Amino acid sequence: MTCDINALAAIDLGSNSFHLVVAREEQGEIRVVETLGEKVQLAAGIGPDKILDEEAIMRGLSCLERFSERLTNVPKDRIRIVGTNALRVARNRKEFIDRAEAVLGVPVEVIAGREEARLIYLGVSHTLSDDGDSRLIVDIGGGSTEFIIGQQFEPQEMESLHMGCVSYRSRFFASGKIKRKYFDRAVLLAQMELQSIRDQYLAQGWHEVVGSSGSIRNIERVLVARGWTESGITREALQRLKSLILSYDHVDELDIEGLKPERKSVFPSGVAILIAIFDSLGIEEMAYSDGALREGVLYDVLGRLSHEDVRERTVLALMERFHVPQEQAVVCEQTAMSLFDQLQQDWNLLPQDRELLNWAACLCEVGRCIAHSQFHKHGAYLIEQSDLAGFSTNEQRELAVLVRLHRRKIALQELENFAPGRTLQLKKLMFLLRLSVTLCAPRFMPAPPKVSVTYNEGLLQLRFADAWPDNYPLALEMLKEEVAMWPKVGFQGEILFD
Amino acid sequence: MTCDINALAAIDLGSNSFHLVVAREEQGEIRVVETLGEKVQLAAGIGPDKILDEEAIMRGLSCLERFSERLTNVPKDRIRIVGTNALRVARNRKEFIDRAEAVLGVPVEVIAGREEARLIYLGVSHTLSDDGDSRLIVDIGGGSTEFIIGQQFEPQEMESLHMGCVSYRSRFFASGKIKRKYFDRAVLLAQMELQSIRDQYLAQGWHEVVGSSGSIRNIERVLVARGWTESGITREALQRLKSLILSYDHVDELDIEGLKPERKSVFPSGVAILIAIFDSLGIEEMAYSDGALREGVLYDVLGRLSHEDVRERTVLALMERFHVPQEQAVVCEQTAMSLFDQLQQDWNLLPQDRELLNWAACLCEVGRCIAHSQFHKHGAYLIEQSDLAGFSTNEQRELAVLVRLHRRKIALQELENFAPGRTLQLKKLMFLLRLSVTLCAPRFMPAPPKVSVTYNEGLLQLRFADAWPDNYPLALEMLKEEVAMWPKVGFQGEILFD
Repeated sequence: MTCDINALAAIDLGSNSFHLVVAREEQGEIRVVETLGEKVQLAAGIGPDKILDEEAIMRGLSCLERFSERLTNVPKDRIRIVGTNALRVARNRKEFIDRAEAVLGVPVEVIAGREEARLIYLGVSHTLSDDGDSRLIVDIGGGSTEFIIGQQFEPQEMESLHMGCVSYRSRFFASGKIKRKYFDRAVLLAQMELQSIRDQYLAQGWHEVVGSSGSIRNIERVLVARGWTESGITREALQRLKSLILSYDHVDELDIEGLKPERKSVFPSGVAILIAIFDSLGIEEMAYSDGALREGVLYDVLGRLSHEDVRERTVLALMERFHVPQEQAVVCEQTAMSLFDQLQQDWNLLPQDRELLNWAACLCEVGRCIAHSQFHKHGAYLIEQSDLAGFSTNEQRELAVLVRLHRRKIALQELENFAPGRTLQLKKLMFLLRLSVTLCAPRFMPAPPKVSVTYNEGLLQLRFADAWPDNYPLALEMLKEEVAMWPKVGFQGEILFD
Repeated sequence: MTCDINALAAIDLGSNSFHLVVAREEQGEIRVVETLGEKVQLAAGIGPDKILDEEAIMRGLSCLERFSERLTNVPKDRIRIVGTNALRVARNRKEFIDRAEAVLGVPVEVIAGREEARLIYLGVSHTLSDDGDSRLIVDIGGGSTEFIIGQQFEPQEMESLHMGCVSYRSRFFASGKIKRKYFDRAVLLAQMELQSIRDQYLAQGWHEVVGSSGSIRNIERVLVARGWTESGITREALQRLKSLILSYDHVDELDIEGLKPERKSVFPSGVAILIAIFDSLGIEEMAYSDGALREGVLYDVLGRLSHEDVRERTVLALMERFHVPQEQAVVCEQTAMSLFDQLQQDWNLLPQDRELLNWAACLCEVGRCIAHSQFHKHGAYLIEQSDLAGFSTNEQRELAVLVRLHRRKIALQELENFAPGRTLQLKKLMFLLRLSVTLCAPRFMPAPPKVSVTYNEGLLQLRFADAWPDNYPLALEMLKEEVAMWPKVGFQGEILFD
């Protein structure tokens, strides 16, 4: 089987359904070749102990086995797989991810709610006419609902709330019985969730409202089939739909035209959530769009390939927000990149490791905005906890741990919670970062120091090709102290002078 | 024994010496009545395990017993006792603090390095002529050295570095032997520490340099006795002093005119640190001032008493820096104060509890600058880790825990690490804060809700005196949910309607 170098693919491991989209890149545009969706209902397999049960894991894996057949001719570095709320919540997510990666041969990334929101916006906005007006996009998923306000391809507000058609079904309609009391409680709880974003969103405002996701598509389909709207969803039609649903006693009886049988059980909860959204945000009507998370992921892959990586912008924005001095970051970054490039081959480092080191070099002082003392720890906290557009949660953790370890004691135990292979690579990146930071300790240097670095049989040798050691004797002492710490963590270094 | 209502006192539990100052307030000015100092050398009793040994504890307590005799006529609420680096470092600080509080009958507060710097500046700046020029103030303590740039009474840069005459003596002159190698290593390490503030301080600049602390006073005294300066310290004189010290073999032999015998052992380390400071910051000469931490503490007490509490300004600055919306904070604060005032007597709440609740109400949304999700946790982190001028570390912890507990699950285990009596009071403040936040959930209310609150036999009753329940039905539901959570943590509430 040969690869199609223009093919690309995305898989969305949603809480309700898994989706695959395979596409081709043609003149910088995306042409969808194939889409597949399966209602895996991962979220339904998560108990009160937040453990994903074996049955749900198996449903997911067998779906991925089917998906993997369609991926054989897509280059591995053009496939991206993202997990959303069910995997954010499940405490044994690692087990599922390891097994899924074994099936697919590609890393699985869990993304945070706001990153999910950003990608949904990217997917949906590519389906809409580019009129420059601002729009609110709503996506009701299985475990979370995303709200994005944006213009053209630029999201301005992004939030993700803990409510979805699967989790609300478990909470309010677990028995399958339909009662007004249950329905009204579901609406009320959703309204409470919405309280936290309501004012901010109303203050920002929008010109049109667009819904995506299976829940909203199904609701629209039913409304159109009934003749209650010609297309889209209106507030009045939703109220009629509520009355219709309440005229049934059990979800199994919901034989409603336009409603797919496999969506019956999550229909009342989806409608309840949508009613709360219309109420809280004062929406009168909503259009439906086919775009979704998986298309957003495709456009994001395309962006990264063509050097429009949103993560670059995110790092710059974070530096600005927390007042990281630019000049120092640039010198440190250049030093780190020079060291990386010299050792990349010997150390089997990947292009994505280069990006990671680059960002860590830029961000290592971000924690100073909290306090000078222990600023490496504060920086790690900020990086790990902030919403960083474009980053998966694991990338955030890796970036955070490098910043955590960039100075002071080499606290290797911080690396323990990564996969064994990653621990080793992160340790290498850590040494490169610590070296770079020490070499750049004399601030406001006109240029990065010229250092050649080689690695042979466990020994890292640094050789200076300029007058850095003479010009900065204090920094040289600090460098010697740094290298002297390495043997304690099983590493050796040597500084040579010409 | 009667109290002098105009008396006030401060005790500084330094790493090298303890100091007491008793003063009287006369027309808003401070007139010092008595000062006492004892070389307790607390830092010398801290081993590599960071445990303060019993001998040092006893030295400290017996000194405090002597001090306490001088405090009998000072009103308790006009006495403030602060601990610095040795108590910041000692892992068993709580043991010492409990015993010290038993001796003195007044709370002992451990303050962070930057807060120490701020108070030193306050003390020293009151001794200097008020010429409006900017000044650098340096204070070499037993365990830390503070650097402050300021104008008049306003500090602009404040930092505290981990180097002091006692800790450097233990590190470089533990045997008492004087060797050039040891001396030069001490200077080098101090220079490395200084690297982290050097550029920032040089960029800020100053017109004059003033030193305080026992170390600097002794150095000046020796230089003047030798005739190397008429007053103050110069770079050249310091170099001559270094040569003089290196002409001796052991600290016990340092019979130098002007040097007090009890300061012999910490003299070489103090001189080494001062030489590093002159070098790193390019200082040519330094004047000496008598002002110090303890006088700063007195002025701070006076400020709090006359409603110029620096903590107010700190809270406002934090809100601004991290973009906390002002209007919402004001409504929430007013609601909290109204609830507090109604229950203060029944619940034995103190005036300082009122301040604490007030600040918590203002700051509870500060964590949103990091991420919306779990923002109560992010807020607690920011408050606990930031340098907050005017706050003791314990006050920061209390403020942080209230913000941590202001929403979501009532995680009472967070209160476990406070003294038993405090846990109970903090729990009460937590309920008041949670109530206030819930009552203010409808944002942009024109005024705080009118609620009367009473407490009887374990039951808290809320009664609405306005149309709030009718105007905000959703918030009312949230309030009911909040009150319904209380029995799980051993508390009862009831909502009544007129």
